[in-house]
Amino acid sequence: MKARIAVRLRPDVLDPQGKAIGQALEILGFSGVNNVRQGKLIEFDLDAASASSAEEQVRGMCEKLLANPVIEDYEIEITA
Amino acid sequence: MKARIAVRLRPDVLDPQGKAIGQALEILGFSGVNNVRQGKLIEFDLDAASASSAEEQVRGMCEKLLANPVIEDYEIEITA
Repeated sequence: MKARIAVRLRPDVLDPQGKAIGQALEILGFSGVNNVRQGKLIEFDLDAASASSAEEQVRGMCEKLLANPVIEDYEIEITA
Repeated sequence: MKARIAVRLRPDVLDPQGKAIGQALEILGFSGVNNVRQGKLIEFDLDAASASSAEEQVRGMCEKLLANPVIEDYEIEITA
């Protein structure tokens, strides 16, 4: 199975990295860009009997290591 | 329009950050995890007349700022 995890700062948490990207895009002449947010994308192969057991394992990984649940949300996608 | 860009290291480029995540997961007792890769996820709102013009703009942003085409691939997703 392939796991794909998107880790994003919660919407109410300031994202200075996203803000810097937005400013740089404006300086480069790209206009109309708003609310830039930068997150992490973590992808790996996983040995698991089923998609639901894979998702359960990956949820544990997110809670213990991959995301900081205090300031980050995560989204899990499992594909065969 | 909303733009979502996944920036990943090219498959033949070493990813020490992904490797570190894989080792940490193993230490934490998660087994069966292979080929961990960490990328970036950049999301923003964009003023554009159409999805195709939005995609064209975002492609320019990727080439000029968001990705390093020498070592990274990017994937663009535009939604209304």
